[in-house]
Amino acid sequence: MPPTGPTPALFFDTVNAFQRTEALRAAVDIGLCTHIAAGKHTVAELAAACGASPKGVRILADYMTIGGWLRKEGDAYHLTPDAAAFLDRNSPAYLGDALDFLLGPELRQCFRLLPEAVCKGGTAVSAEGTVSVDNPVWVDFARGMAPIMRLPAELLADLVGGPAEQTLRVLDVAAGHGLFGIAVARRHPRATVTALDWPAVLE
Amino acid sequence: MPPTGPTPALFFDTVNAFQRTEALRAAVDIGLCTHIAAGKHTVAELAAACGASPKGVRILADYMTIGGWLRKEGDAYHLTPDAAAFLDRNSPAYLGDALDFLLGPELRQCFRLLPEAVCKGGTAVSAEGTVSVDNPVWVDFARGMAPIMRLPAELLADLVGGPAEQTLRVLDVAAGHGLFGIAVARRHPRATVTALDWPAVLE
Repeated sequence: MPPTGPTPALFFDTVNAFQRTEALRAAVDIGLCTHIAAGKHTVAELAAACGASPKGVRILADYMTIGGWLRKEGDAYHLTPDAAAFLDRNSPAYLGDALDFLLGPELRQCFRLLPEAVCKGGTAVSAEGTVSVDNPVWVDFARGMAPIMRLPAELLADLVGGPAEQTLRVLDVAAGHGLFGIAVARRHPRATVTALDWPAVLE
Repeated sequence: MPPTGPTPALFFDTVNAFQRTEALRAAVDIGLCTHIAAGKHTVAELAAACGASPKGVRILADYMTIGGWLRKEGDAYHLTPDAAAFLDRNSPAYLGDALDFLLGPELRQCFRLLPEAVCKGGTAVSAEGTVSVDNPVWVDFARGMAPIMRLPAELLADLVGGPAEQTLRVLDVAAGHGLFGIAVARRHPRATVTALDWPAVLE
């Protein structure tokens, strides 16, 4: 019987969406895609390389295949272009470390308390949440987000224009990893970059 | 510039997928769709009805609109057919109570420990996980899943066939909410149904 009215498909897809997040985190955690990039392709090879059980690796890798990260050909798993770029630790664009921030306990707790936040009209975590003075979460953020900002920083530096030898004063507000100011400074050696952020981040 | 190679779209969609889950839970928690079904349509009306802040309700309702649960026309939110069927507490197919089980601390913890489970090749929560003797999670499960099983139970009872007055012995294994056996018994009053489950669930 094809469905003729509402179906519970969206409901279950949404309720279980958090499982997609956790599967990605688990794959990063055991280095699944890094080992595939290094030439391990079968369940047995990957289980040995990851130090995990064959059953666990098989289920996770099949789920990652469905999720668009892997291709499965016979018994062999291969990386999709997205996985090769972002989930192989040896790729310059590796994003796995960003999970320390994006899925860290502080941000997770914000979403666990979403009903309270909706009632209050603001974060329910604490008075200031992640923007409290010198909150260490921004050190994780700066480290984790740097790889993905390398290319945007170069593109933004293109927009400055003008001769390489010009004198510039650059104010990098919430500088984080500092890549934006650094990209400008590389092209304009006489630029003075002022990076503004919490002391722990600047260090 | 259209993307010409890998893009981080899938990465961020997957990392943030848990936010979809939490938004649905928040909407159920404050009764958002129940109030819309009852004729509250604007942010001001919904905030008053839900006892929530206008800012919080607006952001959540806009997010639920993007997620396929609501339609927004001018300032008014309306339910999609899926939301009307499953997220309005006065609908016979209301599924909001199922979140107590599906997003309860026991199942969440299983997925928080997914890296450990992959390494071990089985649940990392405890020796038996949710299948320990008389685990109370199955009482929540029975209560929460009953609404969605009403229709399947009727369809399954159709398959029994035979005259209404026939004598039947029905064994309902892992009976839970009991709806399957009950649906058979309604059509065949001389049926004897034996429901098998943990004592707390049977009660």
